[in-house]
Amino acid sequence: MNAENLPEFEGPMCPLPLPHSEQILLGHGSGGKLMHDLISQVFMPPLHNPFLAQCDDASVIPILDELSATPSVRLAFSTDSHVVTPLFFPGGDIGKLAVCGTVNDLAMMGATPRYLTAGFILEEGLEVEVLTRVLHSMRQAAEEARVLIVAGDTKVVEKGKADGMYINTAGIGVIEHNLYISGNNAQPGDVILLSGTIGNHGIAVLEARQELGFSSHIQSDIAPLNTLVEALIHGGIRIHAMRDPTRGGLATTLNEIAAQSKVGMLIHEEQIPIQPEVASVCEMLGFDPLYIANEGVMITIVAKDDAPAALEVMRASKYGTQAAIIGEVLETPVERVLMKTAYGSTRVVDTPSGEILPRIC
Amino acid sequence: MNAENLPEFEGPMCPLPLPHSEQILLGHGSGGKLMHDLISQVFMPPLHNPFLAQCDDASVIPILDELSATPSVRLAFSTDSHVVTPLFFPGGDIGKLAVCGTVNDLAMMGATPRYLTAGFILEEGLEVEVLTRVLHSMRQAAEEARVLIVAGDTKVVEKGKADGMYINTAGIGVIEHNLYISGNNAQPGDVILLSGTIGNHGIAVLEARQELGFSSHIQSDIAPLNTLVEALIHGGIRIHAMRDPTRGGLATTLNEIAAQSKVGMLIHEEQIPIQPEVASVCEMLGFDPLYIANEGVMITIVAKDDAPAALEVMRASKYGTQAAIIGEVLETPVERVLMKTAYGSTRVVDTPSGEILPRIC
Repeated sequence: MNAENLPEFEGPMCPLPLPHSEQILLGHGSGGKLMHDLISQVFMPPLHNPFLAQCDDASVIPILDELSATPSVRLAFSTDSHVVTPLFFPGGDIGKLAVCGTVNDLAMMGATPRYLTAGFILEEGLEVEVLTRVLHSMRQAAEEARVLIVAGDTKVVEKGKADGMYINTAGIGVIEHNLYISGNNAQPGDVILLSGTIGNHGIAVLEARQELGFSSHIQSDIAPLNTLVEALIHGGIRIHAMRDPTRGGLATTLNEIAAQSKVGMLIHEEQIPIQPEVASVCEMLGFDPLYIANEGVMITIVAKDDAPAALEVMRASKYGTQAAIIGEVLETPVERVLMKTAYGSTRVVDTPSGEILPRIC
Repeated sequence: MNAENLPEFEGPMCPLPLPHSEQILLGHGSGGKLMHDLISQVFMPPLHNPFLAQCDDASVIPILDELSATPSVRLAFSTDSHVVTPLFFPGGDIGKLAVCGTVNDLAMMGATPRYLTAGFILEEGLEVEVLTRVLHSMRQAAEEARVLIVAGDTKVVEKGKADGMYINTAGIGVIEHNLYISGNNAQPGDVILLSGTIGNHGIAVLEARQELGFSSHIQSDIAPLNTLVEALIHGGIRIHAMRDPTRGGLATTLNEIAAQSKVGMLIHEEQIPIQPEVASVCEMLGFDPLYIANEGVMITIVAKDDAPAALEVMRASKYGTQAAIIGEVLETPVERVLMKTAYGSTRVVDTPSGEILPRIC
């Protein structure tokens, strides 16, 4: 497969093109509707290809060894840039985030993460001691995730830009199973599991910004999820889709999968794991925890019969002790996520339009 | 190979550690001595592994298909972040730079570039029309280089950060030959070739910044070099080392290779291709063109007997018509680059300390 034999992009992917006079807003980076519009209307027309069109956390690419003419190896390949502010927050920092973010994107395709690159954009005047702390954190996270950082790049920009540092990571994972795992593959009847409690990361970053007005002791959930994924795959679970609900939170990510798979979903509010402290802070600040970013939690959608075994495997894994079955995939309403609330009513859980909490990853 | 069985980093890699109280300077991003110190003293101790220790433009990584137990495929994996200012300059823009930069890093390992990721950090307020122009430029460059952009990421930062946009690309190439191509592999007796004229990119960016004070009509040399590399490999040339002299220019890159290979080098000033306009501008501004960045030129070091054939292959290729033999690899003086000047004297060509022209890539 090369650029020459790609299908041409066929017309606009959305009926309402973003006017070209428009400017980028903070909300275009939010994970919500604005970002989806930017991607479908601005990024996709020039860059469209079958890999990008999958809209998964990583692309699955075939590598044919033409020299030895051996069969193709399937790799997952992904990237994330990290612009979190501040650089350090309860439970983690930008370095741990940069490693775990890409490790998790690869793991969500069922790949075993192997190699990372790291591209640093440093602000003139950054203390070398701060950079050193971030690098040690990256090393520690990489060791836990059993990945190697094999290539890097450093640029420096003038004081006042880049908020200390931005870090991009890209990663390669090897796919060693024959499952088809994709946001396109949630099927009616499937069961939806969540590996841990929601909202911790976003609230921890807010705390670090001293925007809470009090001290909450809430830690980010940031963690590499590849061991948990490997346990599911080795456990023989028929995984149909996996995704980590980062920007835009659980609500946005479930809506993404519902749209990609053209299915409906019903989740049960009382079954969604959340720490009481996180629930309290969200209530006080008027946030819906369904929309708060997570960095160490994953949605797993599995064949119905495998759900009890999947839950057991998850709960036995370090980052899955709070795992729960939170809902099921429906045939209708297509591309809609419904939630049975604690009060027994049913409401639509929509994709947010713009920014809830900017710069959280 | 995983992180657990790596050799431990053994003590400082440099006798004079950078004091940890020090701050990042613009010069740390220059490609010169300051950047090398930052990498060896700050980045390497926590991140050190045998892949990074190679210090090449891309890492060569083995991929073992454990499922089918087929022999390992060798891939090249690399990344570059791009912070050029302004975003558009004569002959190119940040999008073309982002694609060609990573394509060339892969090509310099003799790999066939296949897949790229692209991570965008956008500044709030950026005109969508500007982003669209950059994306079309990326598409065009990717088509020419026959690579696919298979994954992406978008973040948005507040107005005043990020100069419009920063773009990171990472890339995978497949190594389909059995040559050992590395900056460690220049051998005494080898011949040094250069594929084109030097200094164009740096001067074109200066022109775009209106820092020349006049209009020079000099265009950046920015180009994907993979076709040129493939022609050399298919031509059976015994390539020992290749590298594109970007930040820090020809002088810095030759010094890097001399240091890595523990050899000396002698280049001949009169044989180094340079456009008369570039030479004039450099003379007027007091720049030495040996230190000006290039984005579409490569140094190729080959076995002596192969030099005439290598030159012929290069000159027959689109981006190698100005190719020339510029010097030879010597046993001594170790880690030194000498230049026979146009006046017949011989001088040392040193690595610059800090910044010549910041933000050119």
